Amino acid sequence: MKKLINSADSVVTDALAGMAEAHPGLRVDRDNKVVYRRQGPTPGKVGLVSGGGSGHEPLHAGFVGYGMLDAACPGEIFTSPVPDQVMTATQGVDGGAGVLHIVKNYTGDVMNFEMAAELCAEEGIEVTSVLVNDDVAVKDSLYTAGRRGTGATVFVEKIAGALAETGASLAEVARIGGQVNTLSRSFGVALSPCTVPAAGKPTFDLSDNEIELGIGIHGEPGRTRAPAAPARELARIAMDAVHADLPLSGDTLVMVNGMGGTPLIELYVVFAEVAAYLREKGASPTRSLVGNYITSLDMQGFSVTVCRLTDELTRLWDAPVQTPALRWGR
Amino acid sequence: MKKLINSADSVVTDALAGMAEAHPGLRVDRDNKVVYRRQGPTPGKVGLVSGGGSGHEPLHAGFVGYGMLDAACPGEIFTSPVPDQVMTATQGVDGGAGVLHIVKNYTGDVMNFEMAAELCAEEGIEVTSVLVNDDVAVKDSLYTAGRRGTGATVFVEKIAGALAETGASLAEVARIGGQVNTLSRSFGVALSPCTVPAAGKPTFDLSDNEIELGIGIHGEPGRTRAPAAPARELARIAMDAVHADLPLSGDTLVMVNGMGGTPLIELYVVFAEVAAYLREKGASPTRSLVGNYITSLDMQGFSVTVCRLTDELTRLWDAPVQTPALRWGR
Repeated sequence: MKKLINSADSVVTDALAGMAEAHPGLRVDRDNKVVYRRQGPTPGKVGLVSGGGSGHEPLHAGFVGYGMLDAACPGEIFTSPVPDQVMTATQGVDGGAGVLHIVKNYTGDVMNFEMAAELCAEEGIEVTSVLVNDDVAVKDSLYTAGRRGTGATVFVEKIAGALAETGASLAEVARIGGQVNTLSRSFGVALSPCTVPAAGKPTFDLSDNEIELGIGIHGEPGRTRAPAAPARELARIAMDAVHADLPLSGDTLVMVNGMGGTPLIELYVVFAEVAAYLREKGASPTRSLVGNYITSLDMQGFSVTVCRLTDELTRLWDAPVQTPALRWGR
Repeated sequence: MKKLINSADSVVTDALAGMAEAHPGLRVDRDNKVVYRRQGPTPGKVGLVSGGGSGHEPLHAGFVGYGMLDAACPGEIFTSPVPDQVMTATQGVDGGAGVLHIVKNYTGDVMNFEMAAELCAEEGIEVTSVLVNDDVAVKDSLYTAGRRGTGATVFVEKIAGALAETGASLAEVARIGGQVNTLSRSFGVALSPCTVPAAGKPTFDLSDNEIELGIGIHGEPGRTRAPAAPARELARIAMDAVHADLPLSGDTLVMVNGMGGTPLIELYVVFAEVAAYLREKGASPTRSLVGNYITSLDMQGFSVTVCRLTDELTRLWDAPVQTPALRWGR
């Protein structure tokens, strides 16, 4: 295993030190492992907190800033943040209008965010949560009861974050977050496994000509293995799975996401195929992201996430955002 | 070789199709392989054209847009764009104030940009070029007489692009581009080789515990091979090489760039070490980029580029930019 780290034990806190240096708009509490907006909670605004295992960067800390999250709690690599961490973050972003937890559907995450929410409720902070479970690949998995939460998390954080900036209530912000999840579906394909630093070896084996269809973001198994195939076929397999679950039509927000080890040129090749598929179904890729947004360490492969847009969702997607990984509009 | 492509022959044009779909602010001429700003040349503004082999995305097409390039010419993978392509781009961005070519120092690029500049001069378009040669690793290399052009290209494109938007003359825009190059130095480290689609096999071999210090962006050899080492040591080796060539002091613009296959979490670990090194020398990482900006397909590793900032350069760096890969400020 060759990695740009000092030690497997310190990788998360070392990376947090780097984030603190690189992004003066963030305040990084390395002791509690929470990343906040520099200026602290906005009075009267709903606070947004997300988090989960590290190794998926820029998710989540890369999405802290104006128009998106107020704080992120990075756990150890592929490990849920602990309840204390989430509680600290929740307290730290409470501006008096309540706090929304955005939680990817993994058993540990769900449990620890719930525990933190209960502890915060006892302290008088109103907490609601949105569960993200957009991955159509498998019903249950190694770490999940029900569907896994993957790419739609980025959409939920952006769109709920934009609504929160308008001064909307906790119930409204939670509603829109839930709506984005309901209208979104994802499917991932791995060309290679990833290597967790502490393990020192790949999470699974794939032969030289084999890929995994429906891969999870921790390398957990998908639907099936198959021989490597052209991008056009892989895009079609992913989009067929999405379309079968949520028929595609109208305007869509589409993300072709790299798993961490895939060159950007290849993601654009996939995006062209995804866009062609959408047009074939009478849908349109009105808004898009192409790049590394929710990764699996050094895994090679991609995931595609599609959200059916309403006018309201398009407007909120277009609203200004100022985070390390997403920036536009002001 | 497993790659997200349709065929080795079509990867560049297929990716251009994806860029056209993903970025409505761009106009992509797939026949001539030129990427322009949608709205065409800005009358009275110096036009900026860059280009080079593909496989380094987002460089260069990802930097086309307000505040940066007017057009980019992607060659085939790791292959210079042809003179006709550069000439078409130059003609297409001429707004009457002349055109600046930003050229990385590789023999083929230099030759083909020069030829295009001569052809354009015959047509009455004034062309000046800035040669980027920031890589301190080696004096000459496989594809270069003199130093290679690497990460500083991003800085030159951003800062010269910002000055061009103010209506500065071709001579002024060329001057600032040259100044950025003069004040910038880079050094790269590879943990793995990359695989060119048409070749189908890695560009070089590295054993399981070996890295290449001073790597080029096409996998061309660097200074030496060494055993894998902690991020802190690798950052120090890279920064020592930079500092030995251009003593570091004052405000700096620092990029820790991923080679394409390296997870973002590792780049932040490296950035923390680079920032610590700078402070130790009495310098400060006042502005920064951490991520994939000039890549080598799926290579794992990083490069660091440092530019010593003046007040003028800082102001131009901070100026608004709206491109697929860099966006801020409006």
